[in-house]
Amino acid sequence: MFNRILVPIDGSEGARKALKMAIDLQKTTKAELMLLTVFRHHSLLEASMSMVRPTEPENLDNVLREHAKGVADDAKKFAVENGAESPRAFVKSGPPARTIVKFSKEREVDLIVLGSRGLGDLEGYLLGSVSHKVTSLADCPVMVV
Amino acid sequence: MFNRILVPIDGSEGARKALKMAIDLQKTTKAELMLLTVFRHHSLLEASMSMVRPTEPENLDNVLREHAKGVADDAKKFAVENGAESPRAFVKSGPPARTIVKFSKEREVDLIVLGSRGLGDLEGYLLGSVSHKVTSLADCPVMVV
Repeated sequence: MFNRILVPIDGSEGARKALKMAIDLQKTTKAELMLLTVFRHHSLLEASMSMVRPTEPENLDNVLREHAKGVADDAKKFAVENGAESPRAFVKSGPPARTIVKFSKEREVDLIVLGSRGLGDLEGYLLGSVSHKVTSLADCPVMVV
Repeated sequence: MFNRILVPIDGSEGARKALKMAIDLQKTTKAELMLLTVFRHHSLLEASMSMVRPTEPENLDNVLREHAKGVADDAKKFAVENGAESPRAFVKSGPPARTIVKFSKEREVDLIVLGSRGLGDLEGYLLGSVSHKVTSLADCPVMVV
């Protein structure tokens, strides 16, 4: 039924719930399980967040990337402990919803499973949440958990 | 994994796609399959649609209900022809998203599968589509196909 299931991971409780559901779906469908953590490039953060201008922007990106890698690795470990078969974790930078959808198209994902609310709650409230955007933009079915 | 799958049916192509997906999910999970067609009570239609005031409001409701029953029966027939086991069809009146979510809670549904766009496209554009509202309001996972 599904060959490739993608779970966007942001370290939130919602993402954890989505991952549990995706593991159950993998067990019944034998699909490949992919985890994706998206971090915002510092210029995006800077534009949206504060007047603080980092003096070493390359360093800031490295910090963000390292943090995202940690989140992705944690999720992969959790997946393995919960019986997932060969989950693969990816890290990308960019605006979350568009980056998730782009990745899903490139990798021919046929199901995206994601939490109804991630860490960007306030932004979701103001701009339309990541889950709503992904649901609108994706080519494949999207399960909001 | 799922015990009760609910598919809102409005006669659109999106709802048909959602129903196919739900039938596949039923086959792997042995869940109960419920189909729900929601029609708007004439007073809702009247408020949102036109200046035409029906002279026989009870009759208009009957016509709407009969039409909804036809849509639900078609979907049930399609489900059986495509291998669904004992699908049950329901008809309710009310605002679509809230009625779907209320029904899902009353019946302890644990997955709602619905089309990304139904017949109410224009309304979806203006007010937030039914699928987005259901995703926001539901207690259970929602798969948008």
